[in-house]
Amino acid sequence: MLNHLHIVILAGGSGTRFWPASRRHYPKQLLPLAGRADEPLIAATVRRVAPIVAPENVWVSTSSTLVDGTAKILPRIERNRFLAEPVARNTAPCIGWATATIARSDPEAVIAVLPADHFIADEPGFCAVVERAVRAAAEGWLTTIGIVPTRPETGYGYIEAGEVISEGVHAAARFIEKPTRERAERLVADGRYLWNAGMFFYSARVMLAAIAEHLPALADGLSRIDRGAARGDEAAVLATVFPTLPAISIDHGVMEKADHIAVVPGSFGWNDVGSWQATWEMAHRDSQGNSLPPNSIAIDAHDNLVRDHSRTAHSKRWALVGVRDLCIVETDDAVLVIPRERAQDVRAIVDELKARGEMDRT
Amino acid sequence: MLNHLHIVILAGGSGTRFWPASRRHYPKQLLPLAGRADEPLIAATVRRVAPIVAPENVWVSTSSTLVDGTAKILPRIERNRFLAEPVARNTAPCIGWATATIARSDPEAVIAVLPADHFIADEPGFCAVVERAVRAAAEGWLTTIGIVPTRPETGYGYIEAGEVISEGVHAAARFIEKPTRERAERLVADGRYLWNAGMFFYSARVMLAAIAEHLPALADGLSRIDRGAARGDEAAVLATVFPTLPAISIDHGVMEKADHIAVVPGSFGWNDVGSWQATWEMAHRDSQGNSLPPNSIAIDAHDNLVRDHSRTAHSKRWALVGVRDLCIVETDDAVLVIPRERAQDVRAIVDELKARGEMDRT
Repeated sequence: MLNHLHIVILAGGSGTRFWPASRRHYPKQLLPLAGRADEPLIAATVRRVAPIVAPENVWVSTSSTLVDGTAKILPRIERNRFLAEPVARNTAPCIGWATATIARSDPEAVIAVLPADHFIADEPGFCAVVERAVRAAAEGWLTTIGIVPTRPETGYGYIEAGEVISEGVHAAARFIEKPTRERAERLVADGRYLWNAGMFFYSARVMLAAIAEHLPALADGLSRIDRGAARGDEAAVLATVFPTLPAISIDHGVMEKADHIAVVPGSFGWNDVGSWQATWEMAHRDSQGNSLPPNSIAIDAHDNLVRDHSRTAHSKRWALVGVRDLCIVETDDAVLVIPRERAQDVRAIVDELKARGEMDRT
Repeated sequence: MLNHLHIVILAGGSGTRFWPASRRHYPKQLLPLAGRADEPLIAATVRRVAPIVAPENVWVSTSSTLVDGTAKILPRIERNRFLAEPVARNTAPCIGWATATIARSDPEAVIAVLPADHFIADEPGFCAVVERAVRAAAEGWLTTIGIVPTRPETGYGYIEAGEVISEGVHAAARFIEKPTRERAERLVADGRYLWNAGMFFYSARVMLAAIAEHLPALADGLSRIDRGAARGDEAAVLATVFPTLPAISIDHGVMEKADHIAVVPGSFGWNDVGSWQATWEMAHRDSQGNSLPPNSIAIDAHDNLVRDHSRTAHSKRWALVGVRDLCIVETDDAVLVIPRERAQDVRAIVDELKARGEMDRT
C-alpha cells in the first residue's frame, strides 16, 4: 500500500454504445463487457488497484441517479466514499470536488483518477505503471499515463512525451486533440506520441493550487462547498453550487495549461471498450472466431458475437447457421442484431427510441 | 353443407424444419406459421372447411402424443373425433382406419382428407375446388386435387391430368415421383401436370373396396379393429393391430394402383409451408421487405424475418441495423439465426441436438 494514496474512480458515464445492455440508468461501467464474464467493468477497476490501495481510500465519483446501482456492484466500498454529482459538469468540477473532499481529511493525499469503464489485460503491468505515476505525483508533478499506441487511432487524444524526468517518466510536451487519420499515422510513426487514456495522478495540494490558478471559478465553488461541509451542510450547498461550476474537462482546464505536467508511458493491454466490436475483440473466441453463450450451436458460422444480458435466469440455446460477423445482444426487453463492423451505429437505435418518445428503453 | 361429407385432417406430422418454434411434441401444424398471426395452421384448416361441413363431421387424425396439444387448439371439435394413432405407419393405415371408423356410423360417407399444415390464400376458391372434388368422389371416383404449378418445383410429386370426366374434373393419367430439375421444367412447360398436394376425396365404400383389393393386409387389420370396436374393445385391439399394419402411403398403396382415379386442378394460393423461407414469403412485409414483430426498429435492414414464438408474455423490442436476408426465431428456450436462403438447414441444428443427447430441445 502506498501512503496517502487515494483512488478516484470516474463512474458518471452513461454511454449509448452498448445498447440494449447499457441504459441511461444502467450504463456501460456496471456491465461485464470485457474480461471475466461475471465482473462488471467497474468491479474490475476496483479489483485491479486492490494491491496498492486500502479499500477506505477508494472513492467513486458518479451521478446521483447511478449511486444505488453502482454501490450494489461494489459492496466493499462504504457508502460515504461515493461522491454523487447532482448534475454532470464534465471532469474538472468532478475531479476538483473529489480532490477537495479527500484533502479535507488527508491534506497530504496523492490521488489517482481512473476511468471506471476500461479494460486492462496486464494487471501487474498496469499496477507497476500506476506506482511510477504515483511517485511522480508525490514529487509534485501533475501526471498522466500515456498508452503506447498500437494503431493510428483517430478516436483518442495524444500526448507528446518530452524530456525524461526520471526512469519511465517524461515531461508532457503537449496535448493533441483527436487527430485526422493522416496525422495519427505520423504521430504513431514518430514514436514520441502516446494515447491520452484519461488517467490522472497528482498530490491534492498541487491540483488545488493549479485549479486556483487556471480555473478560479471552480476554485471559488469548491471553497463554498468546503465551507458548507464545515458546517454540516454539504448536500444543500452542493445542489446549489455544483450546477454553476464551469463545465470543462480537466485536460482543457488544467493539464494543457499547467507547468509540471508529466506522462508515464504504459503498455498493459489497455482498451477503452468503445463498442460491441471491442467486446468481440477482447472475448475468448472459439476456433471459428465466435464468442457465444455456453452450449450454443454454431454450424458454418464465423466471427460472431452473441451476448445474453438478460437478468432473468434461463438457459436459452443459441443456434447459428451460416452467418458471419454478426453482433447479437439480448436483454429482457430488447434484442439487437447488427454487423460487428457497424457496432458504432447502435446510437441510431437509441436516437430512434428517443424520437419515438420511448425513453424507458434508452 | 354437403350431405354425408366428412373431413379427415391429417395432423400427425412432427417436422423439424420450424425449429425452434416446432418441437417433437409441438409440431408445425400447431403453430401460426402463415396467415393470421394468432391462428395455428390446423385451426385455419378447420376454419376453411366450416362453410361446407358440420363440426361433428370433422375428424382429426394425429399421434397419441399430440392429441392433448391439438385438442386444446381446436375446442369446437369433440374429443371423440380425434383419432389417435398409437404409432405412425404412414398415410394408408391412417386413412384406412379413419375411413373404417367413419363408415361404421355413416356407411354413405364421402370423405375429404386434408393435410393440417398447409396455407391457402384464396379460401372461397379452395372451397369451390373441394366441392367439385367431393362431387366426383360421390360419383365413385378416388379423387385428388392437383395444384396448378407456378414453378419447376422438385420437392413435390406430380399428377398427369388426363381426359376430362366432367367440368373441371380429369381422369388422373399417372402419378410421378419428385422429379429432377430438368424433368420438372418439362412437366411445368407441358401444362398437363399438377402438384400432388396430398388431398384425397372418396366415398368410404369405394376406398374400403380399393384397400381390400390393393392392400389386403391393411383391409384385414381394419376388420380386426372393426370387430374390436363392435365389442367395445377398440383401444386394446388398435394397440395390438396398428403397429402391424403395412407402413405405406395412400399414394403408393392405393391411388397409383386403383382405377377410377380423378384429379381436380386448383389454383388457390396453396403453399405447403415448408420452411421459414415460406413463412417470410407469405408474411406481410414492410417497405424494406422485413417481417418483424410489432414496434421493431429496422435501420438499413432489408428482407429479414424475425419471429417471436415465446409463450411467456413480453414485448421484446427488436432492433435490426444493416442486416439483410436473415431469419431469426426466438422461443422461451432457444434462438435461431440463419440466412433465409439456408432455412432448410435448420435440420442440422436438430441433428446436433440429438447428437448431444438433448432430445428435450428437439
